[in-house]
Amino acid sequence: MASTSIKTVGVIGTGIIGASWTALFLAKGLRVIVTDPAPGAESKLHEYLKKNYLAIPNKIATPEKYLKNLTFVKDIDPYLGELDLIQENGPERLDFKRRLFAHLDAHTPEHVLIASSSSGLPSSEFVTDCERKASRILIGHPFNPPHLIPLVEVVPHPKTGDAYVTAACEFYRSLGKDPVVVKKETPGFIANRLQAAVCAEAYSLIFRGIISAEDLDKTMTSGLGLRWAFSGPVMTNSLGGGGDFGHFMDHLGPALKSWLDDMQKHQFDMGSMTEKETLKGKVDEWVSHVDIEKTEKDRDTFLTGLISARSEI
Amino acid sequence: MASTSIKTVGVIGTGIIGASWTALFLAKGLRVIVTDPAPGAESKLHEYLKKNYLAIPNKIATPEKYLKNLTFVKDIDPYLGELDLIQENGPERLDFKRRLFAHLDAHTPEHVLIASSSSGLPSSEFVTDCERKASRILIGHPFNPPHLIPLVEVVPHPKTGDAYVTAACEFYRSLGKDPVVVKKETPGFIANRLQAAVCAEAYSLIFRGIISAEDLDKTMTSGLGLRWAFSGPVMTNSLGGGGDFGHFMDHLGPALKSWLDDMQKHQFDMGSMTEKETLKGKVDEWVSHVDIEKTEKDRDTFLTGLISARSEI
Repeated sequence: MASTSIKTVGVIGTGIIGASWTALFLAKGLRVIVTDPAPGAESKLHEYLKKNYLAIPNKIATPEKYLKNLTFVKDIDPYLGELDLIQENGPERLDFKRRLFAHLDAHTPEHVLIASSSSGLPSSEFVTDCERKASRILIGHPFNPPHLIPLVEVVPHPKTGDAYVTAACEFYRSLGKDPVVVKKETPGFIANRLQAAVCAEAYSLIFRGIISAEDLDKTMTSGLGLRWAFSGPVMTNSLGGGGDFGHFMDHLGPALKSWLDDMQKHQFDMGSMTEKETLKGKVDEWVSHVDIEKTEKDRDTFLTGLISARSEI
Repeated sequence: MASTSIKTVGVIGTGIIGASWTALFLAKGLRVIVTDPAPGAESKLHEYLKKNYLAIPNKIATPEKYLKNLTFVKDIDPYLGELDLIQENGPERLDFKRRLFAHLDAHTPEHVLIASSSSGLPSSEFVTDCERKASRILIGHPFNPPHLIPLVEVVPHPKTGDAYVTAACEFYRSLGKDPVVVKKETPGFIANRLQAAVCAEAYSLIFRGIISAEDLDKTMTSGLGLRWAFSGPVMTNSLGGGGDFGHFMDHLGPALKSWLDDMQKHQFDMGSMTEKETLKGKVDEWVSHVDIEKTEKDRDTFLTGLISARSEI
């Protein structure tokens, strides 16, 4: 099953993630069959697609063809035989996903890869009632919004076939995405864990009055984030060690350990209402004065430019 | 003391950080008096300046004037009376810095701000022998390389005067930098702590075989890092909560806590030789095949482009 053979994609659920996937699939010239039971879902999707088409990097479809390849259906069952891949974006509820995947597995041809956008539920928990071919089911977790951010976390469950992991990566890569393989299911996968690590320390520093919320964010956007947009923690460490990660660990490891020990001592208590209320107050001193709509618009402009600049290096 | 009155800067130490500061100061049209006792320091500095001049964003000095404003001296003492600000970049040794700062404090006019680039030593520890005016001493910790990355962490010690904190921020801002104020001395300041938080979890995920070193880095450069180059953790959370940080905390706080609890359970042991050796091995599977020199060059190209793109939003 080569990714190039994927011509028709089924999208289940057109909330913010499903709509963004749909925009990407259409822009890349694929035929997309979409379903969502929410009232007004079809017109909301059309609005989203019109609004976001221009921002998608390296489009293949012309604006005319873009929407022609879309079919919105009330019931996807009659179309399951036409699909080459399903991208599921339903609610993050275990009972719902268990029923949905059992149904999809029973009614979709066996060679069809079924990917879930789930950010929270590992697929091993919701393939339990799949009796036909659970090995073609995996997580393809995008980073919001999928039509802009290249990262996709591909997470197999213990019985997913290697060929399907490879096929999923090839498919996402053919769309210009950067898939990574999470080899063992782990809560939060990778990106959300790294993000949580930063948030926890950020909350502690703001709560303790070491730095304002605004300056904390600036530490990221004017420093760390710029670096991390080019090199991840491992390469950054390796460059810091003159190209040698071991050299970095030997020389800067002890300093790193002393900071981590201090951070451990001053951990923010996520379970404490008082700490949370104090933190919220300190954050609001800044965020309540920010024009959020403008920030969101600026972010999309920035990301579009950054992602096209990246592809030139 | 207004930052605009700063025309002549003294730079002590021209290692990688001092040389980069010097390049920036010169590019912004300042007169710079530099000293470094290391053999060959002067010619190494000239080489660095020639190599890095072009990359500096928003230069004021012409290439001709750039080097004319530089004076390299064996002994800076006779020049201390001419300086408006000192940026110190000496070795990170407490005894050395204690002696140096006592000497500078005793021989530099009282209105002159003295900033240390120290990343590790809080200034309260090395101003102990300053008998004249310790209140004009603080940390101005840049993010490497200072001539490119905008972040500067300004860290007063408990007796630093507020006016000097303000003046330092104004001075760095006048150079196109983005200073943040670290209100209380804390090990690693802000950026290194946030970085350590990410590294610790990254090491654990790689060590445990959840993800390869290369894919771990891609999670950052194709996802998180792109987002963080625009918005820090606080604004990212707030945008995730529809513009409301409190809403984010109430709805996604429990998930965040569950990931943090799992991370705590699987912490990488920075003190274990076995864990470190395993980690190094897994990192080397990737890094030993990377062209480090090319990566460094690409990084500088990328950063220069990104930083100029940022200033347009």
